Amino acid sequence: MTKILLHGCCGKMGRVISELSKKYDNLSIVAGIDKFGSDNMGYPVFKSLDECNVEYDVLLDFSRADALENLLTFSLKKQKPIVLCSTGYTEDQLQLIENKSKELPIFRSANMSVGINLISMLLRKVAPVLKDNFDIEIIEEHHNQKVDAPSGTALLLADSIKNSLDTETEYVYGRSGSSKRDKNEIGIHAIRGGSIVGNHDVIFAGDGEVIKFTHNALSREVFAVGALKACQYISKVSENKLYNMEDVIGLDF
Amino acid sequence: MTKILLHGCCGKMGRVISELSKKYDNLSIVAGIDKFGSDNMGYPVFKSLDECNVEYDVLLDFSRADALENLLTFSLKKQKPIVLCSTGYTEDQLQLIENKSKELPIFRSANMSVGINLISMLLRKVAPVLKDNFDIEIIEEHHNQKVDAPSGTALLLADSIKNSLDTETEYVYGRSGSSKRDKNEIGIHAIRGGSIVGNHDVIFAGDGEVIKFTHNALSREVFAVGALKACQYISKVSENKLYNMEDVIGLDF
Amino acid sequence: MTKILLHGCCGKMGRVISELSKKYDNLSIVAGIDKFGSDNMGYPVFKSLDECNVEYDVLLDFSRADALENLLTFSLKKQKPIVLCSTGYTEDQLQLIENKSKELPIFRSANMSVGINLISMLLRKVAPVLKDNFDIEIIEEHHNQKVDAPSGTALLLADSIKNSLDTETEYVYGRSGSSKRDKNEIGIHAIRGGSIVGNHDVIFAGDGEVIKFTHNALSREVFAVGALKACQYISKVSENKLYNMEDVIGLDF
Amino acid sequence: MTKILLHGCCGKMGRVISELSKKYDNLSIVAGIDKFGSDNMGYPVFKSLDECNVEYDVLLDFSRADALENLLTFSLKKQKPIVLCSTGYTEDQLQLIENKSKELPIFRSANMSVGINLISMLLRKVAPVLKDNFDIEIIEEHHNQKVDAPSGTALLLADSIKNSLDTETEYVYGRSGSSKRDKNEIGIHAIRGGSIVGNHDVIFAGDGEVIKFTHNALSREVFAVGALKACQYISKVSENKLYNMEDVIGLDF
Repeated sequence: MTKILLHGCCGKMGRVISELSKKYDNLSIVAGIDKFGSDNMGYPVFKSLDECNVEYDVLLDFSRADALENLLTFSLKKQKPIVLCSTGYTEDQLQLIENKSKELPIFRSANMSVGINLISMLLRKVAPVLKDNFDIEIIEEHHNQKVDAPSGTALLLADSIKNSLDTETEYVYGRSGSSKRDKNEIGIHAIRGGSIVGNHDVIFAGDGEVIKFTHNALSREVFAVGALKACQYISKVSENKLYNMEDVIGLDF
Repeated sequence: MTKILLHGCCGKMGRVISELSKKYDNLSIVAGIDKFGSDNMGYPVFKSLDECNVEYDVLLDFSRADALENLLTFSLKKQKPIVLCSTGYTEDQLQLIENKSKELPIFRSANMSVGINLISMLLRKVAPVLKDNFDIEIIEEHHNQKVDAPSGTALLLADSIKNSLDTETEYVYGRSGSSKRDKNEIGIHAIRGGSIVGNHDVIFAGDGEVIKFTHNALSREVFAVGALKACQYISKVSENKLYNMEDVIGLDF
Repeated sequence: MTKILLHGCCGKMGRVISELSKKYDNLSIVAGIDKFGSDNMGYPVFKSLDECNVEYDVLLDFSRADALENLLTFSLKKQKPIVLCSTGYTEDQLQLIENKSKELPIFRSANMSVGINLISMLLRKVAPVLKDNFDIEIIEEHHNQKVDAPSGTALLLADSIKNSLDTETEYVYGRSGSSKRDKNEIGIHAIRGGSIVGNHDVIFAGDGEVIKFTHNALSREVFAVGALKACQYISKVSENKLYNMEDVIGLDF
Repeated sequence: MTKILLHGCCGKMGRVISELSKKYDNLSIVAGIDKFGSDNMGYPVFKSLDECNVEYDVLLDFSRADALENLLTFSLKKQKPIVLCSTGYTEDQLQLIENKSKELPIFRSANMSVGINLISMLLRKVAPVLKDNFDIEIIEEHHNQKVDAPSGTALLLADSIKNSLDTETEYVYGRSGSSKRDKNEIGIHAIRGGSIVGNHDVIFAGDGEVIKFTHNALSREVFAVGALKACQYISKVSENKLYNMEDVIGLDF
């Protein structure tokens, strides 16, 4: 049973995690920290780390980047691993995380979805094998308020492919006019509409057959699942190191 | 039982039609015309229209644009309707078809697929109703030898939408960089890869839901089905007119 | 500008609607009723209908079936239309709604999604035209906690098809063993897994082509959109009648 | 440059392979064997193996199971590897292939598609990692003349999953009625319609996300691609052994 201390427990993600954690037999949120406090979370909530004296196995953070130093100091004192899921860290903060991971197991991942990380790992294996006979295209779909195109996740997947190949690869962000597809292209297509949460298709189209890897994000629950898996994983490691979601997934190849 | 005279019976499409026609109880190919001739089509094959004296109900043409005048003269003499499925007609030839359709029922359609024409008809009804609350995007997929992008069929579908709306509509052929989707955009995305025959998705993405109209062409059989349906249809009409696939489908709205 | 009085404003759906309503220029929630009350909804909240003296155009209900009589009495007194989105009405209550709709415009719909109702309407038009040459199959996908299979929505769509045909139709809920598909079957396939919100595919598979109608529910927002559209619609009708989502969509065929 | 001797060159598959081979720079069909003969294949065609004195690297067979003994005798005499793509071998014949593979590199595979074999390999790696948090479902789609359900390929994929897990797994071939999905089920759903060539979806549905592996067969070309890849592969091996498509794909895990 992994005992989790949840920092930022009353924010949107904190509530999603609290709800989801009830489904798991082998982990439990034993206390939360939130400066706004709350009564009805089903576990004690403290206004600051210093006020919290509950015993725990892993500190899980879903608050804000600027809480980082406090979290590291607290965790070093307790000698307990930490899972960092806040976003927007500066270069300096990322360096600090890297440094402190020599004194403590720390988890941080650019993408928290099990599915996206898994597909990314598979693509690195599969792309070199398929490249000669298949054309690669990526379609991503997101809601109409998304500003950047293509999505960071689409680029992460494309880079997984590109970096696994020893041939040159060119990203193409749409097609119109009269010219045939070049063999080295990876077409990356950004669909925008409504409130679509996030879909990614990686297509390998060959002579007579198409292979597709698809990921559909259904809700922000996807990040909560990743976070809880990370907590379970890091509670069992012995090495002081910086871990990410690919370590957690642990495909043995 | 519709008796069909098949002009261009030994070409690729002619053979597909001959094969497919065996599945139908209510039509039959009674003779074929092909200048190269052939023995084993299961019906008599003549080298030219003039040599053919078989009785028939409809002349179906899958040969070449330059056979047009011969076909019209022959059909007028016989006073039998004609289904024109050759491609590449000049403006003059299209005008001739238009003119002769006052003396004879003639079928010709820009797109021979039942499915594409049906979806096109539905889009004209549906787009004005959905426009305010849904974002419209089109994805088309074709083989890697296709030169033009987007496909003519994708544009046909987009135009069906555009022409049904009284607001301005802008086609966008891909997205990259940092700017939100504009409400008036229709994104049209051309995927190219392998030997994909032809797929079209028309997406209406709204708050909380997505509606999609999809067409997958599996093989050139799709054109044969459309042609045989056109033959059955035109064998029963009484008015001298130019008919197309939407008439054949005959959705009553 | 449609002024909405929201009954059940602090429940899950009430909050979704309150949030979504901010996106619309031409409607506004002017007050809410909720027996638990709340301060921060952005509009006045009353503990009961009787305490509410705010002027409004439509009463929108997302509470519980047993509030029905109160809602009808209140609306008749105010002579304002009502949109009923609670579920679980008894036969008697449905009869009461029917009766009172002679004195007041009332909206109630078995399914609140614009997309599902739209597809249902299209299927009734399309199925008779395609039936002879296409095989019809339905795939639905829902989360792993759903007890009934197939979904009510899948059956609603299947019934739309069945009732539009003059041939006999048999529903088949899966296939194994050795026998060919019968022409009159509609295969209905229930996929269950994870937290899938709700997907429905209606497939028309023919020779050489496949036509597909797809609906993806992304979140419960889909019901909120339908409800707000119903409010706008019913605020403008003049006839005392029972209206449903198909009236709201208003496809002109 | 791999020089291929094609046995059964004038059958349907023989013609597909002959056409496809023109796309490849690094292989060439140097001669064909077909008892019916043919003039216009672009390479010399002999009526029997014995008449053929052309030098070659690999014998590729797409004829009939009963040609097996002749093929083996000929190949042993020439000491050249053989790729067997005929179907319907008896148990005795499979045993003979096994035995002779000690004297000669022989290729034979239950499924000739690169994509299906690749997905099968990935599933064995991925299923054990995902099983605890994801529900697994398989959808397969084939034409309406297919007699068996589910498809052999769907079962091959399901077995890849099942055999990789140490928990019990139950196949379920459809759902109706009132009972929740059991954690150990793999739903296998057989869609039948029109002339669909062959589609397979393997779905992993979890909390907040869905991962999908999809394979679409577009035409019988898919088997030709696999066969030519097998020829290239086996022309370079040195060990006398029975090889299959997974060896050819050669994913290094």
